[in-house]
Amino acid sequence: MEHRLPFGERLAQAVASRKNPVCVGLDPRVASLPPSLRPTDSSNLALVASAYERFCLEVLDAVCDLVPIVKPQSAFFEEIGPDGVRALERVVRAATERGVLVIMDAKRGDIGTTATAYASAFLGSGEPGSASYSPFGADALTVNPFLGADTLEPFVQRCDAVGGGLFVLVKTSNPGSAFLQDVVSDNQSISERVAKCVEQLSQSRCGAAGYGSIGAVVGATYPEQLAAMRAMMPHAWILIPGYGAQGGAASDVRHGMDARGLGAIINSSRGIIFAYEQPRFAAADWKHSVRNATLAMIEDLAKT
Amino acid sequence: MEHRLPFGERLAQAVASRKNPVCVGLDPRVASLPPSLRPTDSSNLALVASAYERFCLEVLDAVCDLVPIVKPQSAFFEEIGPDGVRALERVVRAATERGVLVIMDAKRGDIGTTATAYASAFLGSGEPGSASYSPFGADALTVNPFLGADTLEPFVQRCDAVGGGLFVLVKTSNPGSAFLQDVVSDNQSISERVAKCVEQLSQSRCGAAGYGSIGAVVGATYPEQLAAMRAMMPHAWILIPGYGAQGGAASDVRHGMDARGLGAIINSSRGIIFAYEQPRFAAADWKHSVRNATLAMIEDLAKT
Repeated sequence: MEHRLPFGERLAQAVASRKNPVCVGLDPRVASLPPSLRPTDSSNLALVASAYERFCLEVLDAVCDLVPIVKPQSAFFEEIGPDGVRALERVVRAATERGVLVIMDAKRGDIGTTATAYASAFLGSGEPGSASYSPFGADALTVNPFLGADTLEPFVQRCDAVGGGLFVLVKTSNPGSAFLQDVVSDNQSISERVAKCVEQLSQSRCGAAGYGSIGAVVGATYPEQLAAMRAMMPHAWILIPGYGAQGGAASDVRHGMDARGLGAIINSSRGIIFAYEQPRFAAADWKHSVRNATLAMIEDLAKT
Repeated sequence: MEHRLPFGERLAQAVASRKNPVCVGLDPRVASLPPSLRPTDSSNLALVASAYERFCLEVLDAVCDLVPIVKPQSAFFEEIGPDGVRALERVVRAATERGVLVIMDAKRGDIGTTATAYASAFLGSGEPGSASYSPFGADALTVNPFLGADTLEPFVQRCDAVGGGLFVLVKTSNPGSAFLQDVVSDNQSISERVAKCVEQLSQSRCGAAGYGSIGAVVGATYPEQLAAMRAMMPHAWILIPGYGAQGGAASDVRHGMDARGLGAIINSSRGIIFAYEQPRFAAADWKHSVRNATLAMIEDLAKT
């Protein structure tokens, strides 16, 4: 097994070196691609897959010196079939080659050997022949805890073996997340039960920067719960979706940070990758819009 | 949009015509493949993908006249990367060509447009050019409700549009499923909350056979909860994993059936597809073992 630092430490180093916690979400949609990249026939999935790959690689070129981490959304690649999944694999590899960490946003969850299979698929190095080889080769994976804490174990074991990380869904950003996540019994909500489990897993794997490799997803759209979750999980990285397009502001996401301004990464997808659609980021080249929107987000977060 | 009967009715017809509720789980594992199909180099993922595809197609040939439905486990195909995902697409198409319904066991779940993307990926017809085209073209999909009832809506809308079906995780078969699923508040467990939601969705879409297209996953390993869930969801198909290798017996799974012996399908994966490993199903040809194990399961279930 090759020796790679644990994900939690690699993320701490990347955030420190880029001096910001921005995660760029790679969520390609055919209808939103810059006109110059739109496929001539959007029912030809091989053409769409090529366009998605080129689009994501150009986004990576525009942001790779600015941000510590990116998050491809697997669903948009799966939507266009096996060609899209091939493009996803190449996008992850391209990000790694550009020195950017990758969270695969696939929200997987299953039992026993099936969970082990998902962990091997997504977590590890993309270098064939390496002992930690994973065909998709991401640094971290989003996972769904609904099936139980026992079903997180195969993912955690894989993280331990390959220096990978997890972001466990704790409180999601959608309007209906209360349906199960806010159900309270014995004075704790479902989200809090999951948060306790995440904290235990990360605390026992805590690195030099004070954070382990098993993190949590907590939406920016519920700032009070974000603050409570930050307090419950002092050793866990928090991935915060919901900034920008979903309504979360910089003043909301700062609740996910510790006193040093660390411990959370803030995702923006549409607001950055399709910035060419926003008048304030208009530019002759859509990649300049991407870069300008990224710089604006970094500045916005630095003010809080 | 082509006109296809709702999934719930297509499943009722298939179960009636095959006269059994057996679902064969297609869970290929390289180490368990019949020796004649094992790739010469299991680190060559293209070779492994070819072996998985051939294995699944031969299993389909062995069981397609016997059972109403099959359930490929996406994780085992994803584990071997994009080549595996391509094999998965072909396995679904091959099952459809052989007149067998397909549940894609991918346990997807996400919010808004991301859920819509997963629904389009998996639910629909595999015929390019059809208005209900889906690259993976399954008849039904397993989904995870953790993110909230609102996140099931895009999947339900897709089912309505293309005659597809869902199996929502309600009570899973693993030892740790109680961690969140059995948490009780206001006199109802998390599983019961999800079950109520499933029943509402299926009841309002109820077909001639008395069942809708939005079903539930309830493990055979918790027979008492299975009986309670059957009573709570009188209009929902139940997919019951956990028979055989996971310990569930025919006497356990009958709790998922209605008084007519309908309303549930019973999955077996390893117990059927790797039956050649079991002395009682030993045969010169591993496909005969698959067929004999399937017939034995049908007989076992008929006795209850």
